[in-house]
Amino acid sequence: MDQRTKAKLFRGLHTGPGILVLPNAWDAISARIVEAEGFPAAATGSAGVAAVLGYPDGERIPRKEMMFMVARMAAAVDVPLTADVEAGYGNPGGTALEVIAAGAVGMNLEDMVDHELVPLAKQLDGIRAAKAAAAASGVPLVLNARTDILLVKHGDEATRFDRAVERLNAFHDAGADCLFAPGVVDAGTIERLVGAIKAPLNILAGIGTPSIPELQRLGVKRVSLGSGTQRVTLGALQRFVRRIRDEGTLTPLATDALSYADVQRLLTSSSR
Amino acid sequence: MDQRTKAKLFRGLHTGPGILVLPNAWDAISARIVEAEGFPAAATGSAGVAAVLGYPDGERIPRKEMMFMVARMAAAVDVPLTADVEAGYGNPGGTALEVIAAGAVGMNLEDMVDHELVPLAKQLDGIRAAKAAAAASGVPLVLNARTDILLVKHGDEATRFDRAVERLNAFHDAGADCLFAPGVVDAGTIERLVGAIKAPLNILAGIGTPSIPELQRLGVKRVSLGSGTQRVTLGALQRFVRRIRDEGTLTPLATDALSYADVQRLLTSSSR
Repeated sequence: MDQRTKAKLFRGLHTGPGILVLPNAWDAISARIVEAEGFPAAATGSAGVAAVLGYPDGERIPRKEMMFMVARMAAAVDVPLTADVEAGYGNPGGTALEVIAAGAVGMNLEDMVDHELVPLAKQLDGIRAAKAAAAASGVPLVLNARTDILLVKHGDEATRFDRAVERLNAFHDAGADCLFAPGVVDAGTIERLVGAIKAPLNILAGIGTPSIPELQRLGVKRVSLGSGTQRVTLGALQRFVRRIRDEGTLTPLATDALSYADVQRLLTSSSR
Repeated sequence: MDQRTKAKLFRGLHTGPGILVLPNAWDAISARIVEAEGFPAAATGSAGVAAVLGYPDGERIPRKEMMFMVARMAAAVDVPLTADVEAGYGNPGGTALEVIAAGAVGMNLEDMVDHELVPLAKQLDGIRAAKAAAAASGVPLVLNARTDILLVKHGDEATRFDRAVERLNAFHDAGADCLFAPGVVDAGTIERLVGAIKAPLNILAGIGTPSIPELQRLGVKRVSLGSGTQRVTLGALQRFVRRIRDEGTLTPLATDALSYADVQRLLTSSSR
């Protein structure tokens, strides 16, 4: 499947009756496992990828290193891959071209840099630049535009929800295909947000969010997990090495692990 | 601590009364977790690192990409890091210099390429080249020389053990600091091997190997896990995404995961 077709396929996953579930990956083998378990698309998570290379979250990872990882993840899967590239590393248009060159067909773009909200006009310019660059390249990149207003509890609480909706709808008017509002947890607010915005809504699932069938019932079109998927595996690592340290036992190798052969098969079995 | 001092510290961990336990890492955050849990050194695992970038095991990963990952892992930890660089990518001397340049102080060198045992004379040349290059660079790299004779059940069974011992002792005479014999599982053979070789023995712990206290009692000086550590986490990932797919629930985020704050603290809390 060529990249243009993959982008269209990925766009279509936002507009059916179902909900697109993206358990974000952080490296090639995690993306491949998500694909092998039947998910129709894969997504990178920026905090997770940064941690793979030892960087804290928040654009500390050099853009070049992030793109290297996106490219390795895109090469590992046949399903469409969408890339979380934070706030676009100072150049959303250039970043969009690099995302496409890396083999991805979707891109997240957030509106906070160094704990400061990017001014709306500047963010809209970035969204337009990303969409224009993608259109010129021939790949209809699916842009997921994110506001962090609700996540960081930005500004006056009384106007917060309306300010988030205003931003998200402006993002959509500038060309964003999907709208992402991390920080929304309760069913009531999610339902209000679905009703207030003009494009498919992406919810970040975490502790306390409704189950996925419930999110679907509320009208959410896309749900992602951020670094949550990776953090579940890091919890497993921590427990395993504590047990090695404290008891000297290795039983999780027999009871909990994928086999060496399974992993090698995953890395060689794709139709690529 | 400078790299020379770190190399000496790492060498010393092979000669005390205890056993050096290395739950191999595959990226920066996994190395950091091993360090944070109190292990005195960290080790990369080549199959794990290759999987991070989507390559099957066996020198399919380009040397440059392997070295990039080793460098990111070395930068993430303060403890000594030893790098698994397979059979040295056709140039053990040059690879040793790159391992040192990446910040590591130890290196594994194995004797099988494309399922063929490297001729002994050639392997000894590689060991001497790696040690000489390291000595010239001023960093006393700890070389862990591995034979795969027992792992792949190479040749006549009647002479296999003796052939492995002969290779390992030749590796030591050529300068190897530690001798690695993956594929040995039962306590009897491990004890015989400890008695027959002239340097500290590294055992690959897996399903069926004795517990770590038992390995220590048998005289093993170093135990590593290969890709086992990563495969435990990939098992956790597979179970988590299956649960998301089949039940739509995300409870492992609350019960099994490290928190976002924990991970960020690990990435910023080192003394570096």
